[in-house]
Amino acid sequence: MFSQQIQLRGHIIDSLLLPKVLDEILTNGGQFTIREVKIGQQRTDPSHATIDVFAAIPEAVDNLIGRLRQHGAEVVKEEDVQLAEAPADGVFPEDFYVTTNQQTFVHLGGRWIEVMPATMDSGICVDVKTRTATTVKFSGVCKGMKFAVGHRGIRVMPVERALDRHSVFEFMASSVSSEKPKSAIIREVAAEFRLAKKSGGKILVVAGPAVVHTGAGEHFEKLIQWGYVDLLFAGNALATHDIENALFGTSLGVYLERGALADEGHENHMRAINVIRAVGGIRPAVEQGVLTSGIMFQCVRRNVDFVLAGSIRDDGPLPDVITDVVEAQKLMRSKVGDITIALMMGTMLHSIAVGNLLRAAVKTICVDINPSVVTKLADRGTFQAIGLVTDIEPFLRELTEFLAEEKPA
Amino acid sequence: MFSQQIQLRGHIIDSLLLPKVLDEILTNGGQFTIREVKIGQQRTDPSHATIDVFAAIPEAVDNLIGRLRQHGAEVVKEEDVQLAEAPADGVFPEDFYVTTNQQTFVHLGGRWIEVMPATMDSGICVDVKTRTATTVKFSGVCKGMKFAVGHRGIRVMPVERALDRHSVFEFMASSVSSEKPKSAIIREVAAEFRLAKKSGGKILVVAGPAVVHTGAGEHFEKLIQWGYVDLLFAGNALATHDIENALFGTSLGVYLERGALADEGHENHMRAINVIRAVGGIRPAVEQGVLTSGIMFQCVRRNVDFVLAGSIRDDGPLPDVITDVVEAQKLMRSKVGDITIALMMGTMLHSIAVGNLLRAAVKTICVDINPSVVTKLADRGTFQAIGLVTDIEPFLRELTEFLAEEKPA
Amino acid sequence: MFSQQIQLRGHIIDSLLLPKVLDEILTNGGQFTIREVKIGQQRTDPSHATIDVFAAIPEAVDNLIGRLRQHGAEVVKEEDVQLAEAPADGVFPEDFYVTTNQQTFVHLGGRWIEVMPATMDSGICVDVKTRTATTVKFSGVCKGMKFAVGHRGIRVMPVERALDRHSVFEFMASSVSSEKPKSAIIREVAAEFRLAKKSGGKILVVAGPAVVHTGAGEHFEKLIQWGYVDLLFAGNALATHDIENALFGTSLGVYLERGALADEGHENHMRAINVIRAVGGIRPAVEQGVLTSGIMFQCVRRNVDFVLAGSIRDDGPLPDVITDVVEAQKLMRSKVGDITIALMMGTMLHSIAVGNLLRAAVKTICVDINPSVVTKLADRGTFQAIGLVTDIEPFLRELTEFLAEEKPA
Amino acid sequence: MFSQQIQLRGHIIDSLLLPKVLDEILTNGGQFTIREVKIGQQRTDPSHATIDVFAAIPEAVDNLIGRLRQHGAEVVKEEDVQLAEAPADGVFPEDFYVTTNQQTFVHLGGRWIEVMPATMDSGICVDVKTRTATTVKFSGVCKGMKFAVGHRGIRVMPVERALDRHSVFEFMASSVSSEKPKSAIIREVAAEFRLAKKSGGKILVVAGPAVVHTGAGEHFEKLIQWGYVDLLFAGNALATHDIENALFGTSLGVYLERGALADEGHENHMRAINVIRAVGGIRPAVEQGVLTSGIMFQCVRRNVDFVLAGSIRDDGPLPDVITDVVEAQKLMRSKVGDITIALMMGTMLHSIAVGNLLRAAVKTICVDINPSVVTKLADRGTFQAIGLVTDIEPFLRELTEFLAEEKPA
Repeated sequence: MFSQQIQLRGHIIDSLLLPKVLDEILTNGGQFTIREVKIGQQRTDPSHATIDVFAAIPEAVDNLIGRLRQHGAEVVKEEDVQLAEAPADGVFPEDFYVTTNQQTFVHLGGRWIEVMPATMDSGICVDVKTRTATTVKFSGVCKGMKFAVGHRGIRVMPVERALDRHSVFEFMASSVSSEKPKSAIIREVAAEFRLAKKSGGKILVVAGPAVVHTGAGEHFEKLIQWGYVDLLFAGNALATHDIENALFGTSLGVYLERGALADEGHENHMRAINVIRAVGGIRPAVEQGVLTSGIMFQCVRRNVDFVLAGSIRDDGPLPDVITDVVEAQKLMRSKVGDITIALMMGTMLHSIAVGNLLRAAVKTICVDINPSVVTKLADRGTFQAIGLVTDIEPFLRELTEFLAEEKPA
Repeated sequence: MFSQQIQLRGHIIDSLLLPKVLDEILTNGGQFTIREVKIGQQRTDPSHATIDVFAAIPEAVDNLIGRLRQHGAEVVKEEDVQLAEAPADGVFPEDFYVTTNQQTFVHLGGRWIEVMPATMDSGICVDVKTRTATTVKFSGVCKGMKFAVGHRGIRVMPVERALDRHSVFEFMASSVSSEKPKSAIIREVAAEFRLAKKSGGKILVVAGPAVVHTGAGEHFEKLIQWGYVDLLFAGNALATHDIENALFGTSLGVYLERGALADEGHENHMRAINVIRAVGGIRPAVEQGVLTSGIMFQCVRRNVDFVLAGSIRDDGPLPDVITDVVEAQKLMRSKVGDITIALMMGTMLHSIAVGNLLRAAVKTICVDINPSVVTKLADRGTFQAIGLVTDIEPFLRELTEFLAEEKPA
Repeated sequence: MFSQQIQLRGHIIDSLLLPKVLDEILTNGGQFTIREVKIGQQRTDPSHATIDVFAAIPEAVDNLIGRLRQHGAEVVKEEDVQLAEAPADGVFPEDFYVTTNQQTFVHLGGRWIEVMPATMDSGICVDVKTRTATTVKFSGVCKGMKFAVGHRGIRVMPVERALDRHSVFEFMASSVSSEKPKSAIIREVAAEFRLAKKSGGKILVVAGPAVVHTGAGEHFEKLIQWGYVDLLFAGNALATHDIENALFGTSLGVYLERGALADEGHENHMRAINVIRAVGGIRPAVEQGVLTSGIMFQCVRRNVDFVLAGSIRDDGPLPDVITDVVEAQKLMRSKVGDITIALMMGTMLHSIAVGNLLRAAVKTICVDINPSVVTKLADRGTFQAIGLVTDIEPFLRELTEFLAEEKPA
Repeated sequence: MFSQQIQLRGHIIDSLLLPKVLDEILTNGGQFTIREVKIGQQRTDPSHATIDVFAAIPEAVDNLIGRLRQHGAEVVKEEDVQLAEAPADGVFPEDFYVTTNQQTFVHLGGRWIEVMPATMDSGICVDVKTRTATTVKFSGVCKGMKFAVGHRGIRVMPVERALDRHSVFEFMASSVSSEKPKSAIIREVAAEFRLAKKSGGKILVVAGPAVVHTGAGEHFEKLIQWGYVDLLFAGNALATHDIENALFGTSLGVYLERGALADEGHENHMRAINVIRAVGGIRPAVEQGVLTSGIMFQCVRRNVDFVLAGSIRDDGPLPDVITDVVEAQKLMRSKVGDITIALMMGTMLHSIAVGNLLRAAVKTICVDINPSVVTKLADRGTFQAIGLVTDIEPFLRELTEFLAEEKPA
């Protein structure tokens, strides 16, 4: 039997850490003895547990410790993080540590160093001289860079659930089904938006073409005009259908004013793309007076930064679309560092893609009429996302109504 | 080879009758020769086609003719409808004609008699003396009644699609997906509601508990107060959750004002049922001042007739619920004769059940966030239903906003 | 400040009881002090916690204690259950205790008495003389019966999660999405079925018409023939479509052998009902040689007990259908006492209805292609159900293949 | 009033062309007079109609004629196609003709020239010297190329529905719901696959990662081994999860053999990508013995051509993935010229993208558990696709079982 001693600290009871840890040990074939549990008298007092973890072979202990670290367990005598060199550009060393989107530290020379930024599915590049640790995606790996390997000397700090619930965003990984009332939640989202504006937060909106198809474009324009959008991530489809609507009054050939029943053919989106290609892009189209309304127009006029990322189903695309997906990822990643709220609407592809780039601390809300979008987003690691299963047009209508009640001066 | 000659009349080209008929013949192993086609010069001129239908055995011709009648084909020399006696109570004669929900006539003594009311999945009871023909469900069959058998002497008049589309209800069997704009359609539904009020139409609402869960109860109450609901069909759940909300402010234990995140336990719906059982029903509860708000309260106060039909998942049920489903069907059927518009919201069970009782001419709109409800409704014969895939709360909010713009004085 | 002391016993850490209790207290505005926590050294050792619960007014403490009892908390000095008389037939006394489907005890004359059977959404009728406690539904209440009121003297024992997971059924409230592999789980279900047969367990199948529509009828017949079905709960639709298939080879007018594309009209289900009504029921139809194959035939031949419960969308119905839903509930409830496994397939209505009748200890698996069925089942209290999001035909095909590998002799 | 005369030829009745055309005219504000209708005596005889189309202004007539051409109407005196030069690289001339995926001809110097290949959402580039016409996407436009503009001199030949239905693929735009039996259809798909192999057809498979997640990889490998896959289009996710399964036995961290309940963490897909990046790609991995099983391994071993197209949610990606989406589109388009059957499974993005590249004559079947994928595919122009709403694993299992019954020698 081999063993190692771990410690749990913090609100280990109410954050469910202790039971999760014990569960993890048993599930993976290990055994444990609880050496000590000290639980605070008041809920705000921190608690503490010391546990011996046993397994038949040393590798199994290591494996267990690796898992338990994900839950915040510390090995009592901490060793330094182990490093290995990338064998080639774009290739991590074998056994590289794969990050989550949670706050992570590496132990180096007796100190814990925070890994910045917290990004999932990356390696941890450690610069021993400057004592810095950075998350690096495959595309950023250069031969010879040093990466954390194994699980020793690495510590993850799970996002702690707040003791008092004054915000919808504390209900992480919840999904509000189509069967439940949504006004109260939308009101809270509005409150968070206002708070973000006041306190220097930054709001990212990730939007699919359904924002335009459902007729919600005008509400989204208001969000931009009122200063609630700091950054927009979308694809060719959102921009194309928005511009199609601005130029021809249709979206996918449907006249938005006359409704879904007046289908007018699918040519207009091709013509819209052609118009923008002819003038060289969205900004030139606005500057030359070709494009005078819509979401993209408002972004240009209000200097809202946007990234349009390509996909293989794109027609055109618009000149502004970044057709190389790795380049698009890099650009998006470079812009999300100070985002505090992410609102994702009507796009599974972009929501999951952007979820992969955000740290867990970003307050994330995902609105989709398809309940599986929210489920998949959480399944793929963006566990902090709150889901709202509803139609996008009424969601944005109600959100802007709440914001209008107390518009910033 | 055996054959029979049929005629098609009316707008056989633009109503797609001719191709459907030819298709049906070939699909079922028959052959045809077109004797004559006379197409009107203008679209409003009626057209006419005479077709010989061939098959190898007489039964196959009969079978074919039976099918073609569903599309409005007439046999040139019409014989009288064939009748047979019901062998026992609740049992149709063998080979009884099964109705659709379309206008149907039987040929008796040289005359075409309309079958009243047009109801699907029934037999046609013919009273030779009074020269009347009635649809009868299994439960209404008495030994010795005479029913139409086979397909001779029976003619179906399909609902004709209007030449000019001034109403959403002309797009039968369409479903408006969650991806499309809905405001234009909701505006048209509002216009139909206003028209119905002016012109003596009657509006039936079929509602599931999601009307209450989603927080749409207050909008529905307005519909009732403004006189837009002539008849309400629902189940124990709608009434219970409405009353739970009226008495305790919750629906399925969720405080509607505080939103989906404040789940308060599931006991209140049981207590709500108990309160109403104690006073003997919904009307007594209103009269004794126990129930002072909500959908059911408004129905009682406004004398809106309602039928609450039971289901095996009911708790309680409320004393007003008809627990025998055959009795509930009979009662509902007795009340829908003069209904001209049916609005179905958030209930697959009741929507399909009520769809089975309505004649095809009733303008039917089905609102559900689940696209399959609309599909199934059409699959099961209520082909005239328009589907709207959206959340119920914003649908009813927008509908009442449109109605409020031009409220009847 | 008012307070009461509670105790938690058992596996309070790994069953998440302790954190849930603390959470509940804070969420509902209370405060707590942990007096003592003793955690077993090994996971199999029981743990123990004593907690003081505080609130501003006595009623709030009572309310809190009421909630905490649902999680298994005991008040240290236990008082007897409080009883009140039913004021009328079918009406519980005010403030009656509403049951869950978990094992429940009442404290009477210094003893804990188990409430039998464990059924949700019922009252607890206590017979002081015989010292027995029974769950009673609204329909069973008679004036003068004594029912538990308030929360004192009542104790709920949550189903404990097993320490070792050797069965799929330990993953309560899990749903296996359409994206995940299902063979391993179906194999485990097969193993549970075999175990049930050997060890005297009883298997209940709840089935919707999709079992027939999807062409899975033949697999279901094998389950019956091999003795794996002890009880069948269904509606008119399952039986009608099964009999339609047996008599005419179609289901909802579709020839099952020729597939979904050969739609042959919707009359056959009406004729099937008529045939069975003419002979007086399913059993007479089998005995007279009218019905010679299919699910219902196999049930009659194998003496598998079945209950067909009516719904308002039924055509006919078949003479075997119980049209009064309260009667149907009572009959179903009277038959589920010794059921150990429930397999629910393709019916939201019947699954939720039957879920309401089962004690939490029944191993419950729900198979549906619609993910929301499983979610709703759990939402409405049948938290123990495992969901499997897949097509019914391949599920049953694979289940019978696994069972055939090791058929009972 | 302005007018133009059009002709309809072929099976204008049973293919519904005539009524569609009349409908289109009225819907768009035009008027018509039917000059002559000659309908064949037998269904196989061609029919013929001459119709005058009227509108108030010449542009409206042009617009109408443009619409009617989509349905196959010919203007009686045909003029040559009008050409205009592309004003810049990547920009079509204004008013360029936007193609559908149907067979299309341009009239040039008195002759009809077929546009090759038939691809939707393209322009028609006409080379007057060589008398050829080609579809060109935005990315292929070079300054000065001549493109068809307006609607004159262009004719579309809709795919005609066969008179005899001996194949599932004749039911274009149908979707087989989860409620219906699928064996018959899967058997027909198997027959088409065998026929394609015999008669020199080519089969394209478009596959999402659910093929691996659901445990269907082994069936898909058989398809490849038996020679039924000529071309594979997929994304990084399919290949990564297949390779993760081959190397570690997991897919998205789930052990496929042990089932969905044994979730083992999400790191393995990152390690799988790293392994392949280290050796330089999938083919080198196979050649060096690193990758010895799975879908991608079989493709390499059997020389099945594959294209992996990138998306912004990709991790890695694998070195074989084409990260520029416009390049990926071009490559895919270059390979689909001789494809006769397309099987799409479990990917909305790739299915719609590939649908955009296929001519309407390609027999297309789309398998997805989500009914909306099929609907969207048809909505976006791939109207010929047959949808099958079911789980992928049982679909592929049954397909391979049918193929195994009569395996090619």
